[in-house]
Amino acid sequence: MLDTLAHIFQPLATKQFDLLLVIYLIAITTEAMSGALAAGRRNMDVFGVVVIAFVTALGGGTIRDVVLGNFPIGWTQHPEYVYLVLLAGLATTVLARFMHHMKRIFLMLDAMGLVAFSLIGCTIALQLEYPVIVVIMAGMLTGISGGILRDVLCNQVPVVFRRELYASVSLVVCVLFLGLQTLGVDADLNTLFCFVLGFGFRMLALRYGWKLPTFSYQQRWD
Amino acid sequence: MLDTLAHIFQPLATKQFDLLLVIYLIAITTEAMSGALAAGRRNMDVFGVVVIAFVTALGGGTIRDVVLGNFPIGWTQHPEYVYLVLLAGLATTVLARFMHHMKRIFLMLDAMGLVAFSLIGCTIALQLEYPVIVVIMAGMLTGISGGILRDVLCNQVPVVFRRELYASVSLVVCVLFLGLQTLGVDADLNTLFCFVLGFGFRMLALRYGWKLPTFSYQQRWD
Amino acid sequence: MLDTLAHIFQPLATKQFDLLLVIYLIAITTEAMSGALAAGRRNMDVFGVVVIAFVTALGGGTIRDVVLGNFPIGWTQHPEYVYLVLLAGLATTVLARFMHHMKRIFLMLDAMGLVAFSLIGCTIALQLEYPVIVVIMAGMLTGISGGILRDVLCNQVPVVFRRELYASVSLVVCVLFLGLQTLGVDADLNTLFCFVLGFGFRMLALRYGWKLPTFSYQQRWD
Repeated sequence: MLDTLAHIFQPLATKQFDLLLVIYLIAITTEAMSGALAAGRRNMDVFGVVVIAFVTALGGGTIRDVVLGNFPIGWTQHPEYVYLVLLAGLATTVLARFMHHMKRIFLMLDAMGLVAFSLIGCTIALQLEYPVIVVIMAGMLTGISGGILRDVLCNQVPVVFRRELYASVSLVVCVLFLGLQTLGVDADLNTLFCFVLGFGFRMLALRYGWKLPTFSYQQRWD
Repeated sequence: MLDTLAHIFQPLATKQFDLLLVIYLIAITTEAMSGALAAGRRNMDVFGVVVIAFVTALGGGTIRDVVLGNFPIGWTQHPEYVYLVLLAGLATTVLARFMHHMKRIFLMLDAMGLVAFSLIGCTIALQLEYPVIVVIMAGMLTGISGGILRDVLCNQVPVVFRRELYASVSLVVCVLFLGLQTLGVDADLNTLFCFVLGFGFRMLALRYGWKLPTFSYQQRWD
Repeated sequence: MLDTLAHIFQPLATKQFDLLLVIYLIAITTEAMSGALAAGRRNMDVFGVVVIAFVTALGGGTIRDVVLGNFPIGWTQHPEYVYLVLLAGLATTVLARFMHHMKRIFLMLDAMGLVAFSLIGCTIALQLEYPVIVVIMAGMLTGISGGILRDVLCNQVPVVFRRELYASVSLVVCVLFLGLQTLGVDADLNTLFCFVLGFGFRMLALRYGWKLPTFSYQQRWD
């Protein structure tokens, strides 16, 4: 067991972007847990819980890599991420009863994940030299499409299309990151700055219930 | 702003298939608007509207390119299409109140889009030398899967599976196009002919409410 | 007609894994029929029935190939599979009324399909030299994601997340297959053994209603 853990975390320690990687691991763990809770609301069996956890945590990166033609897809080269996500999903079935005491922590971790996912998506698309708008969309795809897949599989309209500034945070982070990158700001510094700012923005949006205007259209004529 | 517009439309003017390209631009605009209206029926926020508009307009081509392994995916090389689609989605939130006066125009544009998408899908699969049935499916995927994604994200059974001859028009167009191509008809002429015929077929199906037989099966035994 | 049939089955006869291939053909046929029945429950038109049949039968393999970057995707190189699946979907609209007399046979074929899909998925991922966990997931993706797509398109929570040991059978088959493969067991023998065992497991799960524990979580706090 300890060997396995060592195997999981050892390769991570030697990577360059330590901070972003640590945040990424927190992010996929948190997203896996949010997926597991959504599955629990639909009374799924343990297997369904694990699938939804996986899709929520790693589905966004999968869609991004497919759309960018960036094969092999990230997690297929990092079994340790897969194990982490599956474990987090399973653990949630046990820990769920204690979780509403941790609502605040959970929302903080989730906000970190959203911002980290967005920055990672942008970085990958930049490396592949895609046009600006594609880089921004890659960031947003990574940030939000895991949650969209979760909601589609749980048969509900994705909350990301209706919730307080969630996707907008992703958009702001991506645009800011690209802007500073164009101005020649150092990548590490840029990442850190955008992370802090995006996280703060999301926290404020949650605290004050900021929302985008909604569009209601009831007429049916097609 | 004018510079941006010039940048958007300049590369289009030099392309060979002017007609099909113009129709394609009309098609993605119309599909984006139909996506935005569907999002409005679900009271989504502005961001959700834009996402659904994007997915409806460019999702079909994305799925086709992924299934055919045709990387990089079309729109990632044409940022101008992405901007057009996002703009059309946003504009719809403002213009929606006037749109039911334009129902007839809208349905005509939508029919053009369906036929244009189908022909483009066939053409791409033909260039990649896929078997006949795959060429037909590529045409249909391009024509109808954007609308399917839209309906799945809006949490309803895709209308394309139940509406008056919509997908069937796509099928007829694809089969006809392939047949004439096999007979050695010039590609441009073939495209034009199939476009006109497919458009007329769809308009007639709408006018007279032609439908395919439905299959009802109520027994549950699995 | 006979020529077409000969064309369809002739290339199959010369393949090495005769057994697995025959079972695969039975599997895609059965899955296509289950898709068509689900479409019938939603009163879809004939076109919708055929699409759902196709997606249920070949969608799992498509997702697996995309995730593994295994292009070109299987069925695009085997038009005969596509024709078989479309035909099975259409035939179901005629045969449905007699089918509840065949429930037992249908469930047996479906179980064979599940196990065959899983083994084929594992085999392909192994050939591409993916890590163990990815091989297992490739097997499971092939086995179950067709049914998930079917349920999403029919706008319901996928039954595979709630039904008696369905996905679990796929998991057990994949793990067993990989384990024996690591121990050096001959691939053909291994395939046969896992097939028989997985099939028996699924039949027993059905007969005795074995289920995984479900996870219910009703609290909403996000």
